[in-house]
Amino acid sequence: MKIVEGLLTNPKGNYQLNTINLMKHAIRNFSRQEIVSRKIDGSLFRYTYKDSYARMQQLANALESIGVKVGDRIGVLAWNHYQHFEIYFGLPGTGAVMITLNLRLSLQDLSYVINHSNTSLIIVDEDLIPVAESILSSCKKVKGFIIITEKDLSEIETKLDPIYSYEELLKNASPHYEWPYLDENSAYAACYTTGTTGKPKGVYYSHRYVYLQSIVFTAQFSMTANDVVFQLVPMFHVIGWSKPQAAVYAGSKIVFSGRWTLDDLEELTNIMVQEEVTVSGGVPAVFMAMLEIIRKMDQKPDLSSTRLICGGSEPPIALMRGFWDETGGEIIHSYGSTEAMAITTLNFFKPWLKRELTEEELWDLKKKQGTIVSGLDIKIVDKEGNELPHDGKSSGEILLRGPWILTGYHNAPTTKDSFTEDGYFKSGDAGTLDPEGYLKITDRIKDVIKSGGEWISSIDMENVLISHPGVLEAAVIGVPHPKWDERPIALIVLREDYKSVNQNEIHEHLSKVFAKWQLPDEILFINSLPRTSVGKLDKKVMRNKYKNIYSKD
Amino acid sequence: MKIVEGLLTNPKGNYQLNTINLMKHAIRNFSRQEIVSRKIDGSLFRYTYKDSYARMQQLANALESIGVKVGDRIGVLAWNHYQHFEIYFGLPGTGAVMITLNLRLSLQDLSYVINHSNTSLIIVDEDLIPVAESILSSCKKVKGFIIITEKDLSEIETKLDPIYSYEELLKNASPHYEWPYLDENSAYAACYTTGTTGKPKGVYYSHRYVYLQSIVFTAQFSMTANDVVFQLVPMFHVIGWSKPQAAVYAGSKIVFSGRWTLDDLEELTNIMVQEEVTVSGGVPAVFMAMLEIIRKMDQKPDLSSTRLICGGSEPPIALMRGFWDETGGEIIHSYGSTEAMAITTLNFFKPWLKRELTEEELWDLKKKQGTIVSGLDIKIVDKEGNELPHDGKSSGEILLRGPWILTGYHNAPTTKDSFTEDGYFKSGDAGTLDPEGYLKITDRIKDVIKSGGEWISSIDMENVLISHPGVLEAAVIGVPHPKWDERPIALIVLREDYKSVNQNEIHEHLSKVFAKWQLPDEILFINSLPRTSVGKLDKKVMRNKYKNIYSKD
Repeated sequence: MKIVEGLLTNPKGNYQLNTINLMKHAIRNFSRQEIVSRKIDGSLFRYTYKDSYARMQQLANALESIGVKVGDRIGVLAWNHYQHFEIYFGLPGTGAVMITLNLRLSLQDLSYVINHSNTSLIIVDEDLIPVAESILSSCKKVKGFIIITEKDLSEIETKLDPIYSYEELLKNASPHYEWPYLDENSAYAACYTTGTTGKPKGVYYSHRYVYLQSIVFTAQFSMTANDVVFQLVPMFHVIGWSKPQAAVYAGSKIVFSGRWTLDDLEELTNIMVQEEVTVSGGVPAVFMAMLEIIRKMDQKPDLSSTRLICGGSEPPIALMRGFWDETGGEIIHSYGSTEAMAITTLNFFKPWLKRELTEEELWDLKKKQGTIVSGLDIKIVDKEGNELPHDGKSSGEILLRGPWILTGYHNAPTTKDSFTEDGYFKSGDAGTLDPEGYLKITDRIKDVIKSGGEWISSIDMENVLISHPGVLEAAVIGVPHPKWDERPIALIVLREDYKSVNQNEIHEHLSKVFAKWQLPDEILFINSLPRTSVGKLDKKVMRNKYKNIYSKD
Repeated sequence: MKIVEGLLTNPKGNYQLNTINLMKHAIRNFSRQEIVSRKIDGSLFRYTYKDSYARMQQLANALESIGVKVGDRIGVLAWNHYQHFEIYFGLPGTGAVMITLNLRLSLQDLSYVINHSNTSLIIVDEDLIPVAESILSSCKKVKGFIIITEKDLSEIETKLDPIYSYEELLKNASPHYEWPYLDENSAYAACYTTGTTGKPKGVYYSHRYVYLQSIVFTAQFSMTANDVVFQLVPMFHVIGWSKPQAAVYAGSKIVFSGRWTLDDLEELTNIMVQEEVTVSGGVPAVFMAMLEIIRKMDQKPDLSSTRLICGGSEPPIALMRGFWDETGGEIIHSYGSTEAMAITTLNFFKPWLKRELTEEELWDLKKKQGTIVSGLDIKIVDKEGNELPHDGKSSGEILLRGPWILTGYHNAPTTKDSFTEDGYFKSGDAGTLDPEGYLKITDRIKDVIKSGGEWISSIDMENVLISHPGVLEAAVIGVPHPKWDERPIALIVLREDYKSVNQNEIHEHLSKVFAKWQLPDEILFINSLPRTSVGKLDKKVMRNKYKNIYSKD
């Protein structure tokens, strides 16, 4: 798009949108605000913004002392904790770029990311040293490792070399640092996406992108210093869905989850209640497990001030309604992607819809991914790129554009498949927009099931499955079929008390909504569903595993 | 400040922060939201964002049809109404610059503003035609006038020539307009400041400034589509304190006050209650009069969701407490200036202060102007420019810097008195910052009273005066005194039922707080206090009027 210059009246240039200012300004007003961080042993570490900012400055001095320069790329391989938070501001504040390393990537992909980004130094949690060691031979450009540990370095056995102790470096550094006045277009961090095919792609976020989204996130969630933000989303995933930065803009208390898996959710749920969390985010599987835990509590917690952003895949109505009924907490259905910095749509009710719709209609509305955050342009287009009407019916690919949406992958040869000439990012997802502006993802393009020339929505079917009292989790995939091209199969994890539920009962339940031809011929009861490194259902794995289930006959 | 370039990874440039996108995005999600506008006859005009946006596009086409081009300066001389709102977006959206004309300026100043800005066209309310006519002979570059009127042009007698009808122009224009993709540094609007001396100075706000502040305002006030914004602040004053733009970002309902003076406040207070206003702003005098009106109501309105931003001068505790006691509504003490786009500090209580302070201490805290909005840099400095500590005691000049703070006046020869070399705006106000970051304006520099080498705070004394039940309004000024250099005098407007209050009673009341030497020797009971065009107490006028009160003896 050609930029038109009007009357330009600011010859001195603009004050740059540097992310370190988010923290500097938080310190000015909210230095006493608390930060809580769950340690490996389950205890909670507590300090204040003021303490944290002093350590950020120590970190910046320490990085400089070991030769880190403006523009250098520094990898971070860490869980959600207060040191990671210090890195989030202290590292990009120096002008270096934080390369967030997804610790669940394959060795091959992880090496690719480190090499492609020219990462020269890696900050790594002690318990993730084996991950760092695994890439040693394939990543020769990495010149050192900073280890986050409470131990003395001499107690640590590792092939990594040279190594520094994060805590020792900070201890020896001054807590005063003169932050450079960075061009707002300087990269703040990179997050590499791992699509279904090909190499990971580099999504680099500038300081400007992050700064803008932090304020927008605060505005969209009406966040203030009275809020308590629970950082559950891995901080190596889309810079933690921007929550740490928005929390800092708002001056909110922050709670970091520490290292966790689904097995730790009982402990995390208790922390959420005790620390009076009001804002968090996660994928449906996490909140579903939390709801199960809450259901078993004798005294149900009051979460009536709590807003849980739920994205990655569609949260079932049963989950949202369950949370509401049990705790008064609201699950906000959301949609996003790495290239769009996670928060693209949010499902809030408009005042007139609250007046006009029945309670059931409102619950139904929550199935949609929500309205587009103001600031972003959105289009749904057909295969020829023609814009489709916002009628709630016409489904097309979702294109996004705006002040914090990627316009190209880093050092990537060709991007025409992913970006339009007028600056839109092509999401690869299909959706409808209704006249009120609510987006509905009709299908993640690869999740649609084509059976005998007709379409079956796997998402709709999963929602109905989840509404059965015995179903804890469910996935529906399409697998090749000799006669019908594709047929659905359902993979179900049953609740403990419902292990006797059988295929007939599920068929009967689905029949209330689906036509007979749509019903999955196979319903498999399994112990857990395969998930990607970021917690989404991994349908690629499922499709591969069950691809011969019909053709074998 | 030298800008440091980090790793630049956005070769395609940034998506520009154009203000028209605020409206485009509001339309996408909130097209049904209501806009209410008080007409001259007192009736309320109602339409929706959707209707308004269609007319904005008609306006843009109309302006082009009469030759308006990108970069042209268009004056606006109008009250607060829906057409003015259409102009707020439709005019700068084309790339032209909106020159907001303060209709209370002297003829001389108004002509200066129009000539200095190269205004070529003026949009004027029918009832303000005499104001426009008055500058005809001194502003030869103005080539036409668009009249906002419901009448046919033939019914209007005026010397203005050529004239267009706003409504006729829109009627003949298409409601579809392709907005140019403007450089975000293009000027959106100008607001000229009128200081105590010299010519008005041109403060030009870029699209970027306005866009950023709209989101920040929304975030700071936790504004959503559930809010109802009452535009009381004149839209020719610091672009209405950014409320119309923030309302649009949040998708809030907006109510425009129409033409009003203090005499209309009973009607406006009723509108505020009926339309369920939750956000508004104004100077203390306005809210003081509103409180008087509410006090006389048989049934007190419930304004417990209402936040009233109060700035321009310090709102007395009695006002803030009165509003709270009578209605549950909160007055948010604020500080700002034209150069800083009005909202610089806001007084919200931090969560820990709510826990630690007594109720009385919290009320006392509300005397302060609040904490600095995140995004802005602030310093208090002594006369040599040395930064002073944030101890709540050291008072110095307030310097401000940030992404939406002016860095220079438009086409002004020298600005060293107003701006520092490192980009700070010198506010001319003195204040302290406490360790929690709350700013307290110690004295508008010209309001301090120096008596016998000691200082008397006029603001403190005004606050105590106002706390007397019989005092409706009060001003304290310093006037020359042959012996003591300066001595205070108090000007008081009494409430109707308290006309018998005398000087002794006031002295007794002040003596509870002030030393005997500090008491004003003269206490004058008058019918109203002189105010500036924007409603601030006009101490310049008062000082001039009473300058001989002591020296005459």
